[in-house]
Amino acid sequence: MSEYQVFGHTNPDTDTIASAIATSYLLNNLYKWDTQAVALGTPNEETTFALNYFKVQAPNVIKEAETEKVVLVDHNEAAQSVTNLSDVTVASIYDHHKFNFSNSDPLYIVAKPWGSVATILYFEFKNNNVEIPSEIAGLMASAIISDTLLLKSPTTTDVDKIALEELAKVAGLENYKEYGLELLKAGTNLENKTEEELLNGDAKTFTMSGRTIRIGQVNTVDIDSVLSRKDKLLAAMDKQMQKNGFDDFLFVITDILNSNSKAIFQGEDLAFVEEAFSIKADNHIIDLPGVVSRKKQVVPPLEESFK
Amino acid sequence: MSEYQVFGHTNPDTDTIASAIATSYLLNNLYKWDTQAVALGTPNEETTFALNYFKVQAPNVIKEAETEKVVLVDHNEAAQSVTNLSDVTVASIYDHHKFNFSNSDPLYIVAKPWGSVATILYFEFKNNNVEIPSEIAGLMASAIISDTLLLKSPTTTDVDKIALEELAKVAGLENYKEYGLELLKAGTNLENKTEEELLNGDAKTFTMSGRTIRIGQVNTVDIDSVLSRKDKLLAAMDKQMQKNGFDDFLFVITDILNSNSKAIFQGEDLAFVEEAFSIKADNHIIDLPGVVSRKKQVVPPLEESFK
Repeated sequence: MSEYQVFGHTNPDTDTIASAIATSYLLNNLYKWDTQAVALGTPNEETTFALNYFKVQAPNVIKEAETEKVVLVDHNEAAQSVTNLSDVTVASIYDHHKFNFSNSDPLYIVAKPWGSVATILYFEFKNNNVEIPSEIAGLMASAIISDTLLLKSPTTTDVDKIALEELAKVAGLENYKEYGLELLKAGTNLENKTEEELLNGDAKTFTMSGRTIRIGQVNTVDIDSVLSRKDKLLAAMDKQMQKNGFDDFLFVITDILNSNSKAIFQGEDLAFVEEAFSIKADNHIIDLPGVVSRKKQVVPPLEESFK
Repeated sequence: MSEYQVFGHTNPDTDTIASAIATSYLLNNLYKWDTQAVALGTPNEETTFALNYFKVQAPNVIKEAETEKVVLVDHNEAAQSVTNLSDVTVASIYDHHKFNFSNSDPLYIVAKPWGSVATILYFEFKNNNVEIPSEIAGLMASAIISDTLLLKSPTTTDVDKIALEELAKVAGLENYKEYGLELLKAGTNLENKTEEELLNGDAKTFTMSGRTIRIGQVNTVDIDSVLSRKDKLLAAMDKQMQKNGFDDFLFVITDILNSNSKAIFQGEDLAFVEEAFSIKADNHIIDLPGVVSRKKQVVPPLEESFK
């Protein structure tokens, strides 16, 4: 057993898995810490595509941290972390989300409002003169492509582009755009998934003014084919809300080619959601033109509306 | 008016003032932000000695932030910040304390468990190839000397020593130990201070399990001469507790030459304080042998005991 486990959020996406692996490597080399990357769930199809492409093994899956000291990547809120977070010591955080964290000891934090944690890590490797192994560079490039939808999401910053281009070189990716489209498409194969898998794939739980709101998101190239399963999705949402005590469930379906979304909503707080997006729902469906980023375009207006 | 105000905690010490000045300079040069260093109180005698020595003007004093965006240095908790923190946007934090922060937007954070924020900033300048002006290097060296008691406090890390030696060179300090003793002694001139000034000089407010605890600290070379004013100090503590709603007041008197402390305690939670330090108080006096660091040796055991 290592001294520290390094992990991203529950329902891991490509940035969370890649950043856990990259951070573990960085800390082992920079600070000589004894760390191991783990994950709070099995990799999704997009991440699996990247892991296979760069021949990297998927991290072991845990629910509870097994070490006394841990490192959080790509999240800082307890609701998105291991179940025993309050029993362990957070030694370090690498993140690009809003903050909601408290502890009782000074710690390392590197947070920047950039498109992906992999971008932050690229500059940590560079500034500290730690060389990036090519397969880790490949995962980090995949993470940037995933989180920024190939540099097209509004979360994208100038430094994401710089980091992606440099990482693609180190990884030996001659054409990162071509690779990126393949990667994103690997994540949109939704037909074989159950409603539960669609809803849980990338869902996170948020607390806003005392209300518990579940927000899921899937990427697709065909929103209508997902919406054709609306009744079954609503039934599955009901079930999850009852089981887990969510007050609301917002399921965002994003067209990654045309940069648009539609969402299915279930819950008691429809009025706040309608106010957040200045639009009336049509039989549980909320049109979200131009919306692709949960973090930048979904969560902040909801928080404002729930205030 | 600048676009961002940069400030440290209330009751500013040398690290808080120096780090606000250094951070403002760093951000203006690195990110081309338009920032201005301000302070949440007038500099103490130690800080004034450093400002005069390096011919730097004291920052303007504010109580409320006057800009919509702000940068916090040397603190992250609302209780130690501007009175209108919840109305402004925190764009960045540079700190070395425990964390208790939440917001609604991704932001920049650089936190490390090192002896002073000035040490963190030294490496930010260095890693980003921003040259440090000699007078700012002098203030940063003073900050490290102040927070680590000339590298003798248990908060001191290897990197504090490296940073102090490099900064002393840039500042043209030929003998930083000699300068450091002068600086620390400038902060221990307590005889002309009223009881209120002693108590407020470096006091911070902490919330532990719903209790509001005020913890002050003075450095001295003669603990007994401070203790000879015990009755007047207790009367002043009572007054402040009543006025501000503090449940407890712990006033730590630290001998910087011999690295020991004694504290005067007033409040309802004596049992928790005695448990924290495994010692019985003797008529309001608590003996704290070997204790010099509030952050590392006073706050954590109290938090553990109040849990």
